[in-house]
Amino acid sequence: MTLKEIEKHACFGGSLAVYEHQSAALSCAMKFSIFLPPKALAGEKVPFLTYLSGLTCTHDNFTTKAGAYAAASRDNIAIIAPDTSPRGDDVPDDVASYDFGKGAGFYIDAAQEPWAKHFRMESYIADELNKLVITEFPLLADKQGIFGHSMGGHGALTLYLKYPGLYQSASAFSPIVAPAQVPWGQKAFKGYLGEDETAWQAHDACALIEKSSARNTFPPILIDQGSADQFLEAQLKPHLFEVACAKAGQNLILRMQDGYDHSYYFIQSFVADHIAHHARILA
Amino acid sequence: MTLKEIEKHACFGGSLAVYEHQSAALSCAMKFSIFLPPKALAGEKVPFLTYLSGLTCTHDNFTTKAGAYAAASRDNIAIIAPDTSPRGDDVPDDVASYDFGKGAGFYIDAAQEPWAKHFRMESYIADELNKLVITEFPLLADKQGIFGHSMGGHGALTLYLKYPGLYQSASAFSPIVAPAQVPWGQKAFKGYLGEDETAWQAHDACALIEKSSARNTFPPILIDQGSADQFLEAQLKPHLFEVACAKAGQNLILRMQDGYDHSYYFIQSFVADHIAHHARILA
Repeated sequence: MTLKEIEKHACFGGSLAVYEHQSAALSCAMKFSIFLPPKALAGEKVPFLTYLSGLTCTHDNFTTKAGAYAAASRDNIAIIAPDTSPRGDDVPDDVASYDFGKGAGFYIDAAQEPWAKHFRMESYIADELNKLVITEFPLLADKQGIFGHSMGGHGALTLYLKYPGLYQSASAFSPIVAPAQVPWGQKAFKGYLGEDETAWQAHDACALIEKSSARNTFPPILIDQGSADQFLEAQLKPHLFEVACAKAGQNLILRMQDGYDHSYYFIQSFVADHIAHHARILA
Repeated sequence: MTLKEIEKHACFGGSLAVYEHQSAALSCAMKFSIFLPPKALAGEKVPFLTYLSGLTCTHDNFTTKAGAYAAASRDNIAIIAPDTSPRGDDVPDDVASYDFGKGAGFYIDAAQEPWAKHFRMESYIADELNKLVITEFPLLADKQGIFGHSMGGHGALTLYLKYPGLYQSASAFSPIVAPAQVPWGQKAFKGYLGEDETAWQAHDACALIEKSSARNTFPPILIDQGSADQFLEAQLKPHLFEVACAKAGQNLILRMQDGYDHSYYFIQSFVADHIAHHARILA
């Protein structure tokens, strides 16, 4: 196995493990966690989800704080939680920024120096890590979904729209739905992709869905958004995605959750609904 | 209010908040978290639990990692999660030890110097903090339970047995049930209480229950213990408590959980059962 086991625990009749591996796409060592439900431990292949985390996070935030594994065990669905950027001393960083460089890979492949060598999170998530986990664990390659939070909600929506043959279901918590139109996304895209804004459109969920066709044949996308989220107005703007989905004929379930903020207490309150959403589509 | 709010989040239709306050019992500033379920937010007084954490923990471990609030919301029960020792630069510590000094208060009042001034966690938990939360939040003073993990399981069982008028229900995850007989407890008791082992008996769950009377009139105590727990043989020894309960006529539900370890993945797997156990007794 090319994976080094860092930790492993029994959890809700399944197992939660953290592995480290050398990533060719990112040219560095990376960690991810994987929850395998009871059926997988019994040797049966199961559907699985990739969860993409938000700014400043590692694989650890979702793993320890989301409270997702009760529902994942119930629905016999595996969950992979990767890191949010390349890591290590060789990887360039913008130490003054929490929203650029390490911890802020934005799930795209950088075209600008000095980022282009390591910051290739799109290739890592949608190709390298995906193939790796399907090879190493009892997962159904043709039954997978993707979800995430904030920057990771942007990652989940864009990768879902870009790789329709790979992911069959998508959902998000407080996603950045229009990165090309908001400060977090503009800073990241300018830094990683360059000044030419036309290149940004390939990584903007609103732009992608407007260009997509026959969206009425796709299953619904679920989004939960807290009404007390401090980033709602300036960075998240879920109603832009609502408008874009309506234009494209995409069924969107956008739930504004009264009083909830941007924290993992919000995520844990609704994560069981998200897992049930994916389980229904992947059944 | 004598409480300073550090953070507050909507969570499962209730709220999770962290407060800081000046403790008279401990002569330092302390933090704790409190989950208030939906009924409490609607103004109704609710039953509540105190959760005592294990070695090296703060109020934060249970709060962020236990995944307890789905069940607490379902059963409309509040949960207080205090710290495990006094804190701050004025508080003495044994920096070479993870199992003595800060992070290791053992829920007793120290008699030895230099610990006696600050290390008074029994008085803090069973008296000062208890009165404070009942004054400040919509909690039913006569409907409360106590539970905890490892060192906190020891705390939960001993305080439950010492204060029968205060706590109506008890449960524990991988508790230290016989601290006077195992290295963790012996080190703590010797350091905080002194060499005289007779003084240790007042803080040893096995010794306490053997001296207790009419235990057959008390509700069952629930204990979950992982079979793969690295501390099982040397430090925890739940079967000593099983023997002591049998002698005393105390109904004990001791569940050995196959393959589970000492981590919060074990706790989150069974915490909903513990909350249901308390809710039934406190109903």
